Amino acid sequence: MTPERDVGPSPFDQLVGTEWLSDDPDGAKARVEVRDELKQPIGLVHGGVLSTMVESVCSRATALAVFDAGMAAMGQSLHVTFLRPITAGTIEVSAVARHRGRTTWVWDAEVNDAEGRVCALARMTIAVRPLPEGA
Amino acid sequence: MTPERDVGPSPFDQLVGTEWLSDDPDGAKARVEVRDELKQPIGLVHGGVLSTMVESVCSRATALAVFDAGMAAMGQSLHVTFLRPITAGTIEVSAVARHRGRTTWVWDAEVNDAEGRVCALARMTIAVRPLPEGA
Amino acid sequence: MTPERDVGPSPFDQLVGTEWLSDDPDGAKARVEVRDELKQPIGLVHGGVLSTMVESVCSRATALAVFDAGMAAMGQSLHVTFLRPITAGTIEVSAVARHRGRTTWVWDAEVNDAEGRVCALARMTIAVRPLPEGA
Amino acid sequence: MTPERDVGPSPFDQLVGTEWLSDDPDGAKARVEVRDELKQPIGLVHGGVLSTMVESVCSRATALAVFDAGMAAMGQSLHVTFLRPITAGTIEVSAVARHRGRTTWVWDAEVNDAEGRVCALARMTIAVRPLPEGA
Repeated sequence: MTPERDVGPSPFDQLVGTEWLSDDPDGAKARVEVRDELKQPIGLVHGGVLSTMVESVCSRATALAVFDAGMAAMGQSLHVTFLRPITAGTIEVSAVARHRGRTTWVWDAEVNDAEGRVCALARMTIAVRPLPEGA
Repeated sequence: MTPERDVGPSPFDQLVGTEWLSDDPDGAKARVEVRDELKQPIGLVHGGVLSTMVESVCSRATALAVFDAGMAAMGQSLHVTFLRPITAGTIEVSAVARHRGRTTWVWDAEVNDAEGRVCALARMTIAVRPLPEGA
Repeated sequence: MTPERDVGPSPFDQLVGTEWLSDDPDGAKARVEVRDELKQPIGLVHGGVLSTMVESVCSRATALAVFDAGMAAMGQSLHVTFLRPITAGTIEVSAVARHRGRTTWVWDAEVNDAEGRVCALARMTIAVRPLPEGA
Repeated sequence: MTPERDVGPSPFDQLVGTEWLSDDPDGAKARVEVRDELKQPIGLVHGGVLSTMVESVCSRATALAVFDAGMAAMGQSLHVTFLRPITAGTIEVSAVARHRGRTTWVWDAEVNDAEGRVCALARMTIAVRPLPEGA
């Protein structure tokens, strides 16, 4: 999916291999194909990949939603609870904006493997601030 | 620093560019040089890089500390509070194991930029479980 | 609702005034009537009341669910995100067990006011451990 | 200790029995004597008591520190990791403001029992906002 108004290329998401599926605050989604360079020493996908995907999905969807109001989005707090390791297939993150306030958005996210099992749960708080002038 | 008993190569840490400085549970440390491919769309280091570094430092130091007891370490919960963006220089994570229990280790970590400013604070809980047989 | 197998009287919940509505892991619930002694200095319900209710609902429902297997439940981590103050009426906590593992249960909880507005979101992790002998 | 400029009586802290020891952002402290009505069903101090104390200490110290600038303090996020149960003696919370920003203060807190053992670790984020007019 290519939103008409994009947030621009994101080098670290490209390094991770993130594929954007939806920027809808009621169900933002992204997916990554598991590959060896995303793993930690004992062959599981590194938790940092999941953390990165959660932050990207929530930040991007917030940024797109508040852009017209002249606001920018910035990660303020990320809390991930890891439930089940992922070793192969795909990693999919789905997130819902539970609070869309003037200064913060608060998201629930979950991470699923290719079989749809819940592998992690996350809460992300995004600060919403005026765009720097000239941005 | 190369510990005598290592946890093996970690592909995602290599992708990020993590340099291990210490595995001491009283002051575990790692460092990453900022480069463009670690950034998000508006030129700041992606929060996922910081989350990855925190998880790696705490997991690795726990794994090394419990290995002789036949135990393995696995990330259970990561909570990062972002305080200040990083755009250049180095990212350094320092972590202290505040609780070293039979089933969980709990870490405090902070992320500093090249000027030593605190850019993020984190709490990481690592589950300690018996090593799978044959591992 | 009075479960047949109860976890016994809970003095602090009585002090707070907690009324148990359901111990179902798919929708555990409790309610408190707002009264002045639950407030902080500027007249809002103290966040600690909400934290207490979340912990009680999740701990109690886990304890009842694992009791027959000879296990006990103990709070391990509570993370509450406060979204909107409560000043009057009722406070209702609803919680769903998202993960029911061998050693931990992980809950999502939300706190609503009398108008049904979401006033806080919480994630609670409960450790599940063998009951002490003789308990 | 009675600060010259107080935040006013706090009914829920009185119900819990909180004794204020310091409002210094470099080492804010409060203490509660354990008594039966603070316990959960199996005789441990309820985690909600610890959560309440952490929130009170951090909120109060922030409120006092920002009052002269015409600002108010409001709990935004509380994350408590429980490490060791408390059954008797005293509960003491100590907190340090690690970040004192324009819109948020971020605190590290720890909870100790009468023997000085660390029983819980907490991270509290306090939102700093303009005082309502007339307040």
